[in-house]
Amino acid sequence: MKNEKITSRDVDFAKWYTDVVKAAHLADYTSVKGCIAIEPNGYAIWEKIQSIMDKKFKELGHVNVQMPLLIPENLFNQEKELIEGFAPELVWVTEVGDKKLDERFAIRSTSETVFCDYYRKHINSYKDLPKLYNQWCNVFRYEKETRPFLRSREFLWQEGHTVHASEEEALKETYQMMDVYRWFNHEVLAIPSITGKKTEKEKFAGAEFTLTNEDLMYNGVCLQDGTSHYFGQKFCKAYDVKFVNKDNKEEYAYYTTWGKTTRAIAAIIMVHADDYGLVLPPRIAPKQVVIIPIGSDERVNELCNKYNEELNKNDIVSYIDNSDKTPGYKFAEAEVNGIPVRIEIGARDLENNKVTLVRRDTREKIIVDSNIDIVSYVKDLLDTIHHDMYIRAIERRDKLTFEAHNMEDMRNILNTQPGFIHAMWCGDPECEMKIKEIKGCKSRCIIEEDPIDDKCVCCGKKADKHVIWGIQY
Amino acid sequence: MKNEKITSRDVDFAKWYTDVVKAAHLADYTSVKGCIAIEPNGYAIWEKIQSIMDKKFKELGHVNVQMPLLIPENLFNQEKELIEGFAPELVWVTEVGDKKLDERFAIRSTSETVFCDYYRKHINSYKDLPKLYNQWCNVFRYEKETRPFLRSREFLWQEGHTVHASEEEALKETYQMMDVYRWFNHEVLAIPSITGKKTEKEKFAGAEFTLTNEDLMYNGVCLQDGTSHYFGQKFCKAYDVKFVNKDNKEEYAYYTTWGKTTRAIAAIIMVHADDYGLVLPPRIAPKQVVIIPIGSDERVNELCNKYNEELNKNDIVSYIDNSDKTPGYKFAEAEVNGIPVRIEIGARDLENNKVTLVRRDTREKIIVDSNIDIVSYVKDLLDTIHHDMYIRAIERRDKLTFEAHNMEDMRNILNTQPGFIHAMWCGDPECEMKIKEIKGCKSRCIIEEDPIDDKCVCCGKKADKHVIWGIQY
Repeated sequence: MKNEKITSRDVDFAKWYTDVVKAAHLADYTSVKGCIAIEPNGYAIWEKIQSIMDKKFKELGHVNVQMPLLIPENLFNQEKELIEGFAPELVWVTEVGDKKLDERFAIRSTSETVFCDYYRKHINSYKDLPKLYNQWCNVFRYEKETRPFLRSREFLWQEGHTVHASEEEALKETYQMMDVYRWFNHEVLAIPSITGKKTEKEKFAGAEFTLTNEDLMYNGVCLQDGTSHYFGQKFCKAYDVKFVNKDNKEEYAYYTTWGKTTRAIAAIIMVHADDYGLVLPPRIAPKQVVIIPIGSDERVNELCNKYNEELNKNDIVSYIDNSDKTPGYKFAEAEVNGIPVRIEIGARDLENNKVTLVRRDTREKIIVDSNIDIVSYVKDLLDTIHHDMYIRAIERRDKLTFEAHNMEDMRNILNTQPGFIHAMWCGDPECEMKIKEIKGCKSRCIIEEDPIDDKCVCCGKKADKHVIWGIQY
Repeated sequence: MKNEKITSRDVDFAKWYTDVVKAAHLADYTSVKGCIAIEPNGYAIWEKIQSIMDKKFKELGHVNVQMPLLIPENLFNQEKELIEGFAPELVWVTEVGDKKLDERFAIRSTSETVFCDYYRKHINSYKDLPKLYNQWCNVFRYEKETRPFLRSREFLWQEGHTVHASEEEALKETYQMMDVYRWFNHEVLAIPSITGKKTEKEKFAGAEFTLTNEDLMYNGVCLQDGTSHYFGQKFCKAYDVKFVNKDNKEEYAYYTTWGKTTRAIAAIIMVHADDYGLVLPPRIAPKQVVIIPIGSDERVNELCNKYNEELNKNDIVSYIDNSDKTPGYKFAEAEVNGIPVRIEIGARDLENNKVTLVRRDTREKIIVDSNIDIVSYVKDLLDTIHHDMYIRAIERRDKLTFEAHNMEDMRNILNTQPGFIHAMWCGDPECEMKIKEIKGCKSRCIIEEDPIDDKCVCCGKKADKHVIWGIQY
């Protein structure tokens, strides 16, 4: 039975999305326009994202720090492209109590300025390098149109800021961190992102180049989900971050930054959720298994406890729903909250030594012998669910992946069903602008794949850049 | 040998403090006045504080959320005492890009307003209660005088905000969370805090009462380190947080908040550190053991690796310092960074099957047989260090604990050596004000201990409140 509070995904995707966010208690609007309250179910997903990514960052030698929230205006102004890129979205602190401040402070929209200012003072020699710093924090961008997780004025993220003694090492870091994001999306979120390089127009303000993870949502709209920027020596020149190299010469340092945000939660929803609510990929689910007793039989309770203990002892996060709601209500709640596996234990079934497992992703019921090795069975089932969710996401993505060889193709696709559109591009920003005129379609990334043509999809001139295009969130 | 970069604690305590913060790379000043950069060594301590406290909060049924950073002015204005208490320290966002906003937003200095606004919309019935929410976040208070960790314009903290269906339950929560903070200080930070109730004058703006943990620093100055506030129905009335109770009647909810901040790091330093640098209590030390090879003998390296593996396998965080610094430099670095146990392994000692362990707290060298069961030995040693640090902190506290029976006593103590001053108080705020005239001495808390007199230390009238007084940070 469909959840009444949730609009059908195929009827109104935008409404369906906010319905799922609300019904699964992930977030809600607040009295601050464009800012959300991330509720316990939503924040628990973010905590899981943090713990998995943070562990990986640390394995690769990164350490966490915390830099100031406020940025003095003059510090921001030192890097022109950055301030130009972010200026319209910056909010400014101008008063304290009832007094005007001498200088305005921006609330950070990104922290390149602050990190470079710190590094300037703390780096002298190649022996001080590399610095592999990351911070988990909130940032603020005054967006006009906002939607929970997808585009919020305030959002949470991690921002890595690393400085290196050589171009080679900094480049390696830029690619390595993109690999981490890619790994995370594929192996943890079951989202088959495509990785590539942004065009000059779409790269981060002030970067030499930007690598990006692009996800395709169920409705064919694209979502940028994790970026890694290489700055060369540019920012370090603007902020005077110098070091004495091994040859005893002064040199500007090489800089990279990379970030991933609470937007990942939007991607999870828009790739995996359905008309019944949230569907959580098992490796990111804060609760992986819910055990629901039917009736209050002693044997039922015993088995609930036994399963629960065994699962938790073996690193599967499980809990018993012992609330005084009806079993039917509990099933529906587990479903809308996207818990990967539900175990139903009832007295009648137990008489025949049977229990029922229900997969959230397919809603399939599996009746098993109550004496099975529950740990290994559930472990396998969670892996199967991850695998199947990933395959279905690939199938959906492939179904919504198109090729365009000229502007008519482009228009036809975009007017029928958007998706990932492969098309060759000559590299001229004017062609990029012309394509954008069709429903705001933008280049997503340049990929390292065989060309599908030798002419630019727009101007018809010689083209060697294989680009994915699409409509974005 | 004393660390040259560190002023002696007995010569200039304030300078000693900032020297330790810098020398141990815990934090540094930034271009934003009054705001610090928390560096990797400092942030790692905060991460450890977070992980231990967060686990405890969750065991007690709390869940984490994230509310907006910005608070609309009209929302703040709904609770008069709160706005009056915080107004001079609030910073205001008034502009976005180059446009003026219609309404000012305060950066949160505390989030009672935002949580109550959320609860108003999400609580209808007693079935929705209790809500046991907590958030880890940054807050901003425009302090005039600032010092790293101790008093920073921006700081990190956790703020618990809970709503309950009964006074009894809310009171229980208020005391329970104070117990958690007390447990944390005693059992994890080895700080013998004293717990009590704030006077009316010193309680949180708008609370019915405030419980507090008060620490005594090495120099006899007091530090408030963790508070738990009971609001009764007051805030819920101001913000219209109502619920239908079991008797089907509408009623205002009962509210508590409690918080602990990065200030805990200041307490660790000012209770435990010495002229050689930081001294970390073993249970909060991000790295508990450093193993330093002397020379590059194969047997040495083998034993380093063996110890390191065994320790880490048994939940003791250890690492080998394999950098190309000299052993002497490594010893000094481990010392200034406060790592509880240092293991020195050298070829010459190994010939006699000996290795050296050094306790950071006492700087005592312990020579042991290289074949000892290193895990159980180090485990015991870490417990001993915790215990000894705690006892020394109690001894220091007791040495700086005084009794005053009249204003002359009070003056004598405060002019000689400040500390925790026990004195009886009649309850009249005027007496409190008069005591404050002596070097700014404030009531720290009212404690549940036997009276030491029957007259007020100030006015000489009948008094039954046993109060601890002191000079505060």
